[in-house]
Amino acid sequence: MSVNNVQLIPVSPFPEINPGDNLPLIISSAIKKDDIELQDNDIVVVAQKIVSKAENRIVDLKKIKPTAFSSSVAKEVAKDPRLVEVILAETKKIIRMDMRKEGHGRLIVETRDGLILANAGVDTSNVTGGDSVTLLPLDSDKSADKIRTAIFKKLGKKVAVIITDTVGRPWREGLVDIAIGCSGITPLDDKRGEKDSRGFLLNATVMATGDQVASAAGLLMDKNSQTPLIIAKGINYKKSNRGSKSLIRDSKNDLFR
Amino acid sequence: MSVNNVQLIPVSPFPEINPGDNLPLIISSAIKKDDIELQDNDIVVVAQKIVSKAENRIVDLKKIKPTAFSSSVAKEVAKDPRLVEVILAETKKIIRMDMRKEGHGRLIVETRDGLILANAGVDTSNVTGGDSVTLLPLDSDKSADKIRTAIFKKLGKKVAVIITDTVGRPWREGLVDIAIGCSGITPLDDKRGEKDSRGFLLNATVMATGDQVASAAGLLMDKNSQTPLIIAKGINYKKSNRGSKSLIRDSKNDLFR
Repeated sequence: MSVNNVQLIPVSPFPEINPGDNLPLIISSAIKKDDIELQDNDIVVVAQKIVSKAENRIVDLKKIKPTAFSSSVAKEVAKDPRLVEVILAETKKIIRMDMRKEGHGRLIVETRDGLILANAGVDTSNVTGGDSVTLLPLDSDKSADKIRTAIFKKLGKKVAVIITDTVGRPWREGLVDIAIGCSGITPLDDKRGEKDSRGFLLNATVMATGDQVASAAGLLMDKNSQTPLIIAKGINYKKSNRGSKSLIRDSKNDLFR
Repeated sequence: MSVNNVQLIPVSPFPEINPGDNLPLIISSAIKKDDIELQDNDIVVVAQKIVSKAENRIVDLKKIKPTAFSSSVAKEVAKDPRLVEVILAETKKIIRMDMRKEGHGRLIVETRDGLILANAGVDTSNVTGGDSVTLLPLDSDKSADKIRTAIFKKLGKKVAVIITDTVGRPWREGLVDIAIGCSGITPLDDKRGEKDSRGFLLNATVMATGDQVASAAGLLMDKNSQTPLIIAKGINYKKSNRGSKSLIRDSKNDLFR
């Protein structure tokens, strides 16, 4: 059986993104400019940060007045009350909070979208100034759709698009990248019913292909925020337009919240 | 700033591995035979399954007599009591167990090594017969060391080696690959103190590079068990001989067990 090589290609230089920028168009142009031979079935992986910036999901903490509840939570976790106010506005449910001996505490919540993330994905690094933070895109699947459509229009190629975020995990140290928005790819690859190489039925093997692609691309993204766009070639994936939500475990079926 | 492309190359054909096989030697030969131009700093990614098989970490359930405790747990989670006996022999602590409406229940434990895994990583698929299961290697870091040493001896290249397992996660559906054994790579890449592209200090960014490499390689491994060996080229990583244990969060610092 032949298996392709996989190639991960950073698109660079990639311009600084500002609020209101037409990101789908900028992504298409950057791919063209970098002389990457984009092909059908390539996966275009985009860091959440530039999507959030283009969609103006930026909040100036100077303009935030925390409620009493946010201030109380902020005290518990030793964070800026204005930041906690912004986090809780993105939150459906607090999953865990605690104070660590050194530095800030942890505030792990379920976002409006059902993602479970520290600080609801609100990011204090690398925005326009020390008091600005970025929120996750309002609808990352829709943002991915728009990028996919623009690439087809401008470059004539049928690709998949994944928008990634960098997250912590229970039990393991260090951050990894996951897929928070998808278009044109089934992020869960259900192999149940398929047989392994010896003919035995595979046991409940459903691979989180979307997250694995995000992690692979993250190997190139994490070096600096100037490579927020990676082209992945040679990955076998199933197509679908149903977005990323199948990656989120239903709370009823989750043992850890 | 220039960022390399990353390439993931499956080594194929890869022979069927049997108990007692000299896996480090077989891996070196397979790389040579496949005409892959191995270079210093490449990462050799190896699926746990072939390591376990070579190290004869195979148990025939027919020979297992479950204790009363194992039988009781087995009833709770609707699993074979002999399988539960084998799982609990690998277990330091049961983290969660439950019964689902359909099929088998879940038994999530901390292994002797501190990994938190469903069924202690005991795998019932793709061994030598329906009643055989594989356990994780006794010391995956040591197994990785041996492979790295053999590759240097046989092929003269200084590579890193990662042994991967496929695992489930809280909150998210689908399995991903993680690093359970490492040699020659620091699996945690600590960027705290480094600045982002605008000069702002990065917030506590410690990337789980070992796990991201495992996930990247898993994109090629998950197709069939005949590609258990992937060469990853172009990844920037820090070197170390301290193995994989830094990826495991200390239980005192973990909010989810």
